[in-house]
Amino acid sequence: MEEQWLEGIKWDDKGLIPAIAQDYKTGQVLMFAWMNKESLSLTISLQRAVYWSRSRARLWKKGEESGHVQRLHELRIDCDRDVLLLSVEQIGKIACHTGRESCFYSRLIDGQWQVDSPVLKDPSSIYQK
Amino acid sequence: MEEQWLEGIKWDDKGLIPAIAQDYKTGQVLMFAWMNKESLSLTISLQRAVYWSRSRARLWKKGEESGHVQRLHELRIDCDRDVLLLSVEQIGKIACHTGRESCFYSRLIDGQWQVDSPVLKDPSSIYQK
Repeated sequence: MEEQWLEGIKWDDKGLIPAIAQDYKTGQVLMFAWMNKESLSLTISLQRAVYWSRSRARLWKKGEESGHVQRLHELRIDCDRDVLLLSVEQIGKIACHTGRESCFYSRLIDGQWQVDSPVLKDPSSIYQK
Repeated sequence: MEEQWLEGIKWDDKGLIPAIAQDYKTGQVLMFAWMNKESLSLTISLQRAVYWSRSRARLWKKGEESGHVQRLHELRIDCDRDVLLLSVEQIGKIACHTGRESCFYSRLIDGQWQVDSPVLKDPSSIYQK
């Protein structure tokens, strides 16, 4: 039987919903990804972020290769019920595949995108498999 | 002549990009909306959030009716160049059309979506026009 809280969600025409992941302590926005119904259901049952990878067309248990799991602290939905906000504990302090804390490391300054966040770990040492 | 920083952005198949707006002081995620190239360009030139309203299919200068303008403090883009993060000062302290501070006022608790943020202003008094 489907959980009732899943019913009111507005999925897009591909059956997906945008999901924003935010650090549960600092509020820093770490990344943005998509979920389908199965990944959202798994996110709740496992209490860790599970996304739907559009490029690979499969479930993506965040951290499955890198170990950089996102432990779920809080799940929110917006007024239109078509966007999710996850408050997470980012294991390893790295959310981005580039080895940075957040995916939003480029800032527009004087008309140019400028990287202002350091690589904390070399990606080649994160993804060894 | 098109600004160079606009060129590297990856728009979706509808010419849009997701945009997350976050309070510049507290980090609270206020809302999520979409931008097209024109609205993003206006966001920078006006230094206030201008979205693309998908439902109304027109430019949406946030606060144009409510007065709840979002002054831009910082614009970021993610590693894939397909999501924007705006750090804003929310004038009136209300981002949501329901009169709440943030659109993400429903939290999943014990398998139910529960509203945990107060209405700060009656929407009927916000939208008088």
